[in-house]
Amino acid sequence: MTPQETYDELMKRINEIMVLASCEGVLGWDHQVNLPPAGAAFRAKQSSLLAGMVHERFVDPKIGELLSAIEGSDLVKDADSVEAATVRELRHDYDKETKLPKELVVEFEKTTLMAHNEWAEARAKNDFKKFLPWLEKILDLSRQKAEAYGYEGEPYNALLDNYEPGATVDEVADVFEKLRVDLVVLLDKIKNAPNKPDVSIVERGYNVEKQKVFGELVAAAMGYDFNGGRLDVATHPFTTGLGPGDTRITTRYNPHRLNDALFGTIHEAGHALYEMGLDKEKYYGTVLAESASLGIHESQSRMWENMVGRSKSFWRYFFPILKGMFRDSLNGVTFDDFYAAVNNVAPSYIRVEADEVTYNLHILLRFEIERALIKGDIKAADAAAEWNSRFKKYFSIDVDSDSNGCLQDVHWSSGLFGYFPTYCLGNIYAAQFFAKAKQDIPDLDKKFESGDFLTLREWLRVNVHQEGKRYRANDLCKKITGVGLSHKPMMDYMNKKFGEIYGF
Amino acid sequence: MTPQETYDELMKRINEIMVLASCEGVLGWDHQVNLPPAGAAFRAKQSSLLAGMVHERFVDPKIGELLSAIEGSDLVKDADSVEAATVRELRHDYDKETKLPKELVVEFEKTTLMAHNEWAEARAKNDFKKFLPWLEKILDLSRQKAEAYGYEGEPYNALLDNYEPGATVDEVADVFEKLRVDLVVLLDKIKNAPNKPDVSIVERGYNVEKQKVFGELVAAAMGYDFNGGRLDVATHPFTTGLGPGDTRITTRYNPHRLNDALFGTIHEAGHALYEMGLDKEKYYGTVLAESASLGIHESQSRMWENMVGRSKSFWRYFFPILKGMFRDSLNGVTFDDFYAAVNNVAPSYIRVEADEVTYNLHILLRFEIERALIKGDIKAADAAAEWNSRFKKYFSIDVDSDSNGCLQDVHWSSGLFGYFPTYCLGNIYAAQFFAKAKQDIPDLDKKFESGDFLTLREWLRVNVHQEGKRYRANDLCKKITGVGLSHKPMMDYMNKKFGEIYGF
Repeated sequence: MTPQETYDELMKRINEIMVLASCEGVLGWDHQVNLPPAGAAFRAKQSSLLAGMVHERFVDPKIGELLSAIEGSDLVKDADSVEAATVRELRHDYDKETKLPKELVVEFEKTTLMAHNEWAEARAKNDFKKFLPWLEKILDLSRQKAEAYGYEGEPYNALLDNYEPGATVDEVADVFEKLRVDLVVLLDKIKNAPNKPDVSIVERGYNVEKQKVFGELVAAAMGYDFNGGRLDVATHPFTTGLGPGDTRITTRYNPHRLNDALFGTIHEAGHALYEMGLDKEKYYGTVLAESASLGIHESQSRMWENMVGRSKSFWRYFFPILKGMFRDSLNGVTFDDFYAAVNNVAPSYIRVEADEVTYNLHILLRFEIERALIKGDIKAADAAAEWNSRFKKYFSIDVDSDSNGCLQDVHWSSGLFGYFPTYCLGNIYAAQFFAKAKQDIPDLDKKFESGDFLTLREWLRVNVHQEGKRYRANDLCKKITGVGLSHKPMMDYMNKKFGEIYGF
Repeated sequence: MTPQETYDELMKRINEIMVLASCEGVLGWDHQVNLPPAGAAFRAKQSSLLAGMVHERFVDPKIGELLSAIEGSDLVKDADSVEAATVRELRHDYDKETKLPKELVVEFEKTTLMAHNEWAEARAKNDFKKFLPWLEKILDLSRQKAEAYGYEGEPYNALLDNYEPGATVDEVADVFEKLRVDLVVLLDKIKNAPNKPDVSIVERGYNVEKQKVFGELVAAAMGYDFNGGRLDVATHPFTTGLGPGDTRITTRYNPHRLNDALFGTIHEAGHALYEMGLDKEKYYGTVLAESASLGIHESQSRMWENMVGRSKSFWRYFFPILKGMFRDSLNGVTFDDFYAAVNNVAPSYIRVEADEVTYNLHILLRFEIERALIKGDIKAADAAAEWNSRFKKYFSIDVDSDSNGCLQDVHWSSGLFGYFPTYCLGNIYAAQFFAKAKQDIPDLDKKFESGDFLTLREWLRVNVHQEGKRYRANDLCKKITGVGLSHKPMMDYMNKKFGEIYGF
């Protein structure tokens, strides 16, 4: 077989595996949106059958043989070609999936399944000790995973790479450290600032049906295509790109607070635009049909949610419409007061309720602790104390309970060490991309004010979306902005924005 | 391996095949309820991948070997045991699936896919000639299928057996013929009767949200378990039993007519009670987790829709509630007038809009024609003329266009010859079962009047549902009622009911 024929044979297999995986995607979406409670046990059987078949087909030695036969051939000599990048990523994933011993995979699944319930109970009872043995066990298994994968430097690198391929803990930690220092300063300024937004404005009655209408209006203005998608309700909102022409978003309505569904919908629509911007029709199975990383994915959702959706120019266009729809709750509310209310910064215990500024601090703290846990610099038994002392340092608040501290998130009980940093990477990349977009489109704010959000969407499509996973996240960032990961654009953006709002 | 071990190995495979097929079921439900238009092409790829995998695993020669090894063994010497009945039905399905040459299957799928579009256009343009070559081709392919399956008597038997296993055209035709004669007499009496229901009562404004509330109330009263199900909207309402704890129903609301969603919901809930009454948890993969036939399935939906949902005693309980919910539209409407309105009989062209009496005539006509088409007694070119002349005889109405005649249904273009009779078999079995239930529960009407529908549900569960596919439809009927298929209970029921309503 010629390298091209070998590649075609490989892609035929990968295509089928991807379609099969997308079927599991439909089941997963249905699970979170529609499944009757009594159907949960059977759904687990269905999903694990499909997941097993996907895995089995992907780790087939034939895939490894096909990859080896293409690697080094002329077909992949241009490292940035679709073929070369696709082979690079398939090799990366194939090696990772085949390196884990089956017993470890089974043990990991079994443990995290049980740990999840134990964690939920521990959180409900504010009982860190109850969760401790599970945390220890999962840390141990995670280290075993890292050893099986292999790594340079710290074992954490091997885990981080699962979610942010190619990222290394050293470069991430360096940027995070600088960011943390600057954020703590900013937060301090905000605390001592003269202005205090009146958040009661967005915590009044907001009719759910109208919230839905408004959310769909915003999503459509962003370029979310309802002909190839839908908006549903889910307890834990998410976006799923099920395949060409089928990218679905979800949200959650609070009849007494505007922000939850509104910014949630914008966030998910941002993810969805990325999925819709990948050419899945033509390039299914290749890097051009895949997102670059969780960090880059999050950069899309966070840019739309915060840099666009919480911007002055966005609301210049949308506030009159919103005010017309919610006449009672927004009666007499001025533009400036509303704008300040949706940008309120208020340090609190809970990550998922955090504002734009403190959200990053929540992540940085988690990253520091989980890195140290994996490395062995902190013992699992000390995780709660370590959490609380760092929280005090960064937020100037005493944690009142472990339920509001290190027990609040599901991630560790699910074994997702290495996942947290991608949230913050998303925010950082978002600011870097957004700064570049503003350079390229000098009148971007004017466009927003007139309801034109498609110019930004198009910029993102060309610069980010259509490149798919051709480049690793940091390389994509360099290609677009000229430099790699940098916390500066985010701090510039935040200092300017919150300086104006809070008057310092 | 002992016969038991062989059976266990067989069931392990069948179980996995069933779970895989149920995944396709989820995709199918999602397709009809949720799929964004742009996702249709990819969904077809997903579904056909899963369908292909299901087929491939089921026709694996190993399945045939396992079946052969069990057949004749002690394990299946009691023909009514779960094991024996399961092996019997698997053998039946395995033989049918393996007997069709692959080229014929492919040709059939390709042809019906194209024919479906041609049919839709022909119906829109009232152009039978346009559809004729496709009808001829599908008839030819259907006869080839029958030859490949093999049959006794007429080739139609081989096709009917796909939907109503074990039924033969002779016994069905015999009962249908008697039924037709009696129905034509009944219809004539109704036409010349003194009473005329005022249908405008149910053709007023009925708020869709309230219709949904009322429909769910009725479904819950019937015993439909919303903890293991849900009610959604679909263009072509259907029920799907996706697995243990997950049985979903759909309906379609008309804001200007009460009947569509109301009786549609009751109909689908009737199907759903059957699915929920099968012990899929314990007996997954066996005959006890499968319905007996399409006819028996339809008996459950039609009994609830018509014999219960259109009964006097049902409305003695529900009419006051309905009246309280739709105060404007039902203001001043008497019980008798409402009862007559939901039981109005009005011959019309379209099967899916037909009332309880004429619905059967629609089916009988289709059965007679498709049987003759397959046999070759009628040429495809004469199908429209034959349709119209029979319609005139049975309904005393001239068909005004082929779109309202032989082009109205999707079935023939989809190659579903042999499917139609199951609708009428359902009505007949329903009447037979219902008569027996009334014998066994003499105060059944009193129970309905007081809102107790669970007694009937329980009777159905014990007598019909929990037997699954252990017995073929006609045998199940004999076991329950003492006799096989008979049109008498249905005619007794109809003559009595409509005699009262119409005053003859």
